[in-house]
Amino acid sequence: MTRAEVTELVLCAKRLKGLTWKEIHEKVSVSTSPVVITAAMLGQMRLEPNEAAKAAELLDLPKEAEILLTEVPYRGSLPQVPPTDPLIYRFYELVQVYGTTWKELIQEEFGDGIMSAIDFDMTLERQPDQKGDRVKLAMSGKFLGYKRY
Amino acid sequence: MTRAEVTELVLCAKRLKGLTWKEIHEKVSVSTSPVVITAAMLGQMRLEPNEAAKAAELLDLPKEAEILLTEVPYRGSLPQVPPTDPLIYRFYELVQVYGTTWKELIQEEFGDGIMSAIDFDMTLERQPDQKGDRVKLAMSGKFLGYKRY
Amino acid sequence: MTRAEVTELVLCAKRLKGLTWKEIHEKVSVSTSPVVITAAMLGQMRLEPNEAAKAAELLDLPKEAEILLTEVPYRGSLPQVPPTDPLIYRFYELVQVYGTTWKELIQEEFGDGIMSAIDFDMTLERQPDQKGDRVKLAMSGKFLGYKRY
Amino acid sequence: MTRAEVTELVLCAKRLKGLTWKEIHEKVSVSTSPVVITAAMLGQMRLEPNEAAKAAELLDLPKEAEILLTEVPYRGSLPQVPPTDPLIYRFYELVQVYGTTWKELIQEEFGDGIMSAIDFDMTLERQPDQKGDRVKLAMSGKFLGYKRY
Amino acid sequence: MTRAEVTELVLCAKRLKGLTWKEIHEKVSVSTSPVVITAAMLGQMRLEPNEAAKAAELLDLPKEAEILLTEVPYRGSLPQVPPTDPLIYRFYELVQVYGTTWKELIQEEFGDGIMSAIDFDMTLERQPDQKGDRVKLAMSGKFLGYKRY
Amino acid sequence: MTRAEVTELVLCAKRLKGLTWKEIHEKVSVSTSPVVITAAMLGQMRLEPNEAAKAAELLDLPKEAEILLTEVPYRGSLPQVPPTDPLIYRFYELVQVYGTTWKELIQEEFGDGIMSAIDFDMTLERQPDQKGDRVKLAMSGKFLGYKRY
Amino acid sequence: MTRAEVTELVLCAKRLKGLTWKEIHEKVSVSTSPVVITAAMLGQMRLEPNEAAKAAELLDLPKEAEILLTEVPYRGSLPQVPPTDPLIYRFYELVQVYGTTWKELIQEEFGDGIMSAIDFDMTLERQPDQKGDRVKLAMSGKFLGYKRY
Amino acid sequence: MTRAEVTELVLCAKRLKGLTWKEIHEKVSVSTSPVVITAAMLGQMRLEPNEAAKAAELLDLPKEAEILLTEVPYRGSLPQVPPTDPLIYRFYELVQVYGTTWKELIQEEFGDGIMSAIDFDMTLERQPDQKGDRVKLAMSGKFLGYKRY
Amino acid sequence: MTRAEVTELVLCAKRLKGLTWKEIHEKVSVSTSPVVITAAMLGQMRLEPNEAAKAAELLDLPKEAEILLTEVPYRGSLPQVPPTDPLIYRFYELVQVYGTTWKELIQEEFGDGIMSAIDFDMTLERQPDQKGDRVKLAMSGKFLGYKRY
Amino acid sequence: MTRAEVTELVLCAKRLKGLTWKEIHEKVSVSTSPVVITAAMLGQMRLEPNEAAKAAELLDLPKEAEILLTEVPYRGSLPQVPPTDPLIYRFYELVQVYGTTWKELIQEEFGDGIMSAIDFDMTLERQPDQKGDRVKLAMSGKFLGYKRY
Repeated sequence: MTRAEVTELVLCAKRLKGLTWKEIHEKVSVSTSPVVITAAMLGQMRLEPNEAAKAAELLDLPKEAEILLTEVPYRGSLPQVPPTDPLIYRFYELVQVYGTTWKELIQEEFGDGIMSAIDFDMTLERQPDQKGDRVKLAMSGKFLGYKRY
Repeated sequence: MTRAEVTELVLCAKRLKGLTWKEIHEKVSVSTSPVVITAAMLGQMRLEPNEAAKAAELLDLPKEAEILLTEVPYRGSLPQVPPTDPLIYRFYELVQVYGTTWKELIQEEFGDGIMSAIDFDMTLERQPDQKGDRVKLAMSGKFLGYKRY
Repeated sequence: MTRAEVTELVLCAKRLKGLTWKEIHEKVSVSTSPVVITAAMLGQMRLEPNEAAKAAELLDLPKEAEILLTEVPYRGSLPQVPPTDPLIYRFYELVQVYGTTWKELIQEEFGDGIMSAIDFDMTLERQPDQKGDRVKLAMSGKFLGYKRY
Repeated sequence: MTRAEVTELVLCAKRLKGLTWKEIHEKVSVSTSPVVITAAMLGQMRLEPNEAAKAAELLDLPKEAEILLTEVPYRGSLPQVPPTDPLIYRFYELVQVYGTTWKELIQEEFGDGIMSAIDFDMTLERQPDQKGDRVKLAMSGKFLGYKRY
Repeated sequence: MTRAEVTELVLCAKRLKGLTWKEIHEKVSVSTSPVVITAAMLGQMRLEPNEAAKAAELLDLPKEAEILLTEVPYRGSLPQVPPTDPLIYRFYELVQVYGTTWKELIQEEFGDGIMSAIDFDMTLERQPDQKGDRVKLAMSGKFLGYKRY
Repeated sequence: MTRAEVTELVLCAKRLKGLTWKEIHEKVSVSTSPVVITAAMLGQMRLEPNEAAKAAELLDLPKEAEILLTEVPYRGSLPQVPPTDPLIYRFYELVQVYGTTWKELIQEEFGDGIMSAIDFDMTLERQPDQKGDRVKLAMSGKFLGYKRY
Repeated sequence: MTRAEVTELVLCAKRLKGLTWKEIHEKVSVSTSPVVITAAMLGQMRLEPNEAAKAAELLDLPKEAEILLTEVPYRGSLPQVPPTDPLIYRFYELVQVYGTTWKELIQEEFGDGIMSAIDFDMTLERQPDQKGDRVKLAMSGKFLGYKRY
Repeated sequence: MTRAEVTELVLCAKRLKGLTWKEIHEKVSVSTSPVVITAAMLGQMRLEPNEAAKAAELLDLPKEAEILLTEVPYRGSLPQVPPTDPLIYRFYELVQVYGTTWKELIQEEFGDGIMSAIDFDMTLERQPDQKGDRVKLAMSGKFLGYKRY
Repeated sequence: MTRAEVTELVLCAKRLKGLTWKEIHEKVSVSTSPVVITAAMLGQMRLEPNEAAKAAELLDLPKEAEILLTEVPYRGSLPQVPPTDPLIYRFYELVQVYGTTWKELIQEEFGDGIMSAIDFDMTLERQPDQKGDRVKLAMSGKFLGYKRY
Repeated sequence: MTRAEVTELVLCAKRLKGLTWKEIHEKVSVSTSPVVITAAMLGQMRLEPNEAAKAAELLDLPKEAEILLTEVPYRGSLPQVPPTDPLIYRFYELVQVYGTTWKELIQEEFGDGIMSAIDFDMTLERQPDQKGDRVKLAMSGKFLGYKRY
């Protein structure tokens, strides 16, 4: 069994049981963010053993799938890049358009280094707006300065 | 003269005059965000004519460059994709790792559609933290639902 | 079961039952355009639950396929790009040849922004012509101006 | 001198003289569509000698540029594909998402063949709409049936 | 069942029955060229229903395969491009080497336009020659002039 | 000076002197085919020294360009593949669609081997036709059997 | 059954029977080179019917595999290019580094043309050497001059 | 000055002085193989200082070019891969077709390891043959066994 | 059975038996480095027959898998390049950023040649550090000088 | 002036003055590693202002080049990937072959996370060895654990 097969089992069980990601998150781990839990169910993060046990019970997953959910996955969620799906492409487009702007502004503020994508967290929420609600995505990553040695 | 040449003129003048993006922003347009102004100076957004005039004066740009700064650019700031620069690559990596998670969570909350990258705004700031300051990037894009017709 | 497998089931049932897309459209949803319904059957749009129920009955699809037809798909219909199929390639060629022309003319008329591919509709029809009938494709997408912030 | 250099000369003169594509079209050839004339000025179509003469006079182009405008260009307007510019990318996305739908519907209506991108015409106009004006693009291409031999 | 699976069934039956393409052509449709019939059997053209019936009988194909042979295929016969097979690569090489020459000579003779690959026919034959027989490939495609509108 | 620069000099002189490929061919070498001479002028074949001398005189080329025309070029005439120009793309499409058909039919007739693209010749002519004239391209390449050793 | 499946059957039988390529070559055809026989067993050349019969007997291959071994394969042995396997990559590297040198030296000696990869043979042997034995690869291909016509 | 510019200077001087690679080799270093010297002149190997001095004198190269000829180049001689030039492509094709065969036969003879492309030499010569002379290329590379540690 | 299938069997058995790579290494071969043994279990190196026998016993692998573990694999461990997994990408990034620096410094110290990736060994260990432990990777490869011949 | 032009100026001055990287390092900054200083001179790291001043004096660089050496560069040192240069390719090959092994062993030792390529240092030295000296490369990067949030 591969991690991709676990993802398919998860999606299939979620569909047939009529569950939402919100419900899965609540059943699996309230202390952890829904982004992390959803990413883990989709094969991009790992669960703690007790979380995996709850997920396996909720979704009737076999034992090997449960263990796989606790393993570090080979990350990369897109079937090809650039992503063909419009929702995901828009994020890719932001990197295309604002990439050099982010580089200039982060370096001017922090010096030579990067925003970590590992020591990193993120929230995703609805922002009510009269002209049409907005998606609000807030990211926060530790600044890592290039080491001089 | 091409827009890429204007970007080179801008970077050269900024360097020799010892200016920062913050200073350029303050001289060119306080009412607009520093992200937009910096992106325009880097060839990814357009300036209003009065802003372009101020930018041209500040950076000693020729008339054609000033006009070019008011034109809509052919967007795309990266010399190649995946970006080889580590700071920019980390954002690309976020799309690779979280792309499908964003899709699932946005669709569960909003229905079928996308977060606009056009009716979109963003802030970038320093988040003080004892274990090391963090880069905070907050994005907000209008949700656009797929039209049924 | 994946969405690609649903598409194969649809094509197989359509073939063996001798149905046309027109007939499928009429059975599934007259109020919605045939373009949308066909795109949904091919895995690029979603159906409403009642439409999916009718489609499943017409094509003898299993329950999971019926649910999958109501889910938002991971969009992208082409096995590779540039498309090798001549009919589809001609549209790709139009983008190659007229891309910059569309950009110039839309921006001259509307300002900085894009034609939405989400708040978008389209009709496809036969245009009788003595020298040979023509394919007429009319697209209409909301203009979205780049937000200044 | 290459055709790409002519395009740069055209864009430069248009910018410095403050001309619009509409004005250029009106001066160069009212009988032909603005799409064709703009595409020619951007290096994707050819002009008739009398049109090229008017264009050269209007934009102060040298003789070789005038002749080049009457030559058939090596077509292809995009610096890379997928196009990084959001306005142009949306058209590319339409091909990605609707490609197989167009193929199915055109073939069901016309039989085996393609919509010509050569014996082809197009209009682009503003469609007023209370919720925000729309871009309307109408394409018409001769249907060409696959020859049996 | 997919068209690719039909092609495999055809190749398997041809192999086990010891048939040649010439024999298959003669049994399926003498009035149509062997190039068209072979291309159809390989998933690149469609057969008429009576031809598909004969092919299915000759090769013991199931009913769904017979119907699939009458459908317009998603064209594109090569597993990857550039083709790795030397025989097919040589044709690709001709396009690489003579592409611009063909463009110049066809345009000089016919004006702006293309040779159709749809309203197109072709013969392939042995040309006896003392220094070694030659492959003769004669192609004829309708000239399509770019429409002015 | 590079061969690409010679090609530009040739195209520039041809344009300013108002010459056709036919006229260039007649002045440079009647005994050789116009396809070969045009291909050489475009940097894909070599000329004999006396032909290069005539070409240099006709087009006012400098001595180094004349010598370069007699050198074997680094072949490959297309700026990128797949070719973006529609006229050239149609030939590429023929390889995509008919590649495996050519392989099967040539091998059935000749055995294991290829059609040479080196010991090769070609003619290109107008084929009058009531429904619209056709482009006729006849190719002939020596069959080369795979050597058994 | 496809040729790739035959290759897998061959590798599996060779492994379980503990055979070497040398032993397979000796059993299948002493008159032909081990390079050709091994290449055929790996799906890149064809065997004569009597050779295929011997191979099928030695390796317990089914009848269809035996016939497939006599068919001309779709050539191309590498799962991707550049090859990831270091042994094969070194040959690819030789083409990268010495490609233009080979072109210059072959053309200086022979004139305009190529070394055939079809009318071609090759030997591979161990060259004893005190500093470590060497792999000796000797290739010989017929020179084919570009035809003038 | 870059190494690529040195290569252009070399090719230009060779052309205008009417030199052959054989003559350049004889003047620059008889003790070293013509393959090495030609590769160095084309930017793929380095010359010893005394060889570079002779080359610079023979070809009237400036001092910086002479020094550059003694530097280790950034290797890679092909403008793109797969190579578009037919002579060079045939070698690339040999890797495509025989890659896995070479791997199997070298490993069977030598064990796990590679043929070095660094501790490597090569000769290129004409092999007279009644049916047409042949190009003979003999390569010899040290076998390097994978180290166990 | 292919080597990729063996890797899957290994990973599955390791998971269900709750083994670590360290334990597998200790059971299979203490005299060889854990890097080599792990790489072999992942399909990138080969085992000696006695090691393979121990591995097969430990992991309940079938006989064919045991033999496959002793065969030289077709190397290349990444599903695509650039690698999407962040841990592996960081190594790829080091090559991107430091590639030319390594080239300059190795060549200045050793002359023209390379660091072998075949006669090569490596250790990977934890380096305790107050600010956070570090990963220490020490590589050692034989210097191979370019042969002059 | 761009950073790439600074790199060319540096290489040119180094060549004409006959300097080594070791000498440049000693003149520019003994307290910092030669790897960092060389990488900065090659456009991949930044120098402190006093270091840049010394470098500019040593190499006669203009003022703008001196400032550019203190700016954070757009990192990425390779003209294309996979790198065509054999020395650099070997490192790329190590990633290809050992990528998944590194991932497994680092994760087993440290948990879910990566080795930083930013908080990172490296030494490169000669390792004397009777069978031929070896290149020793020791890397050390901080382990960064994936943040749970």
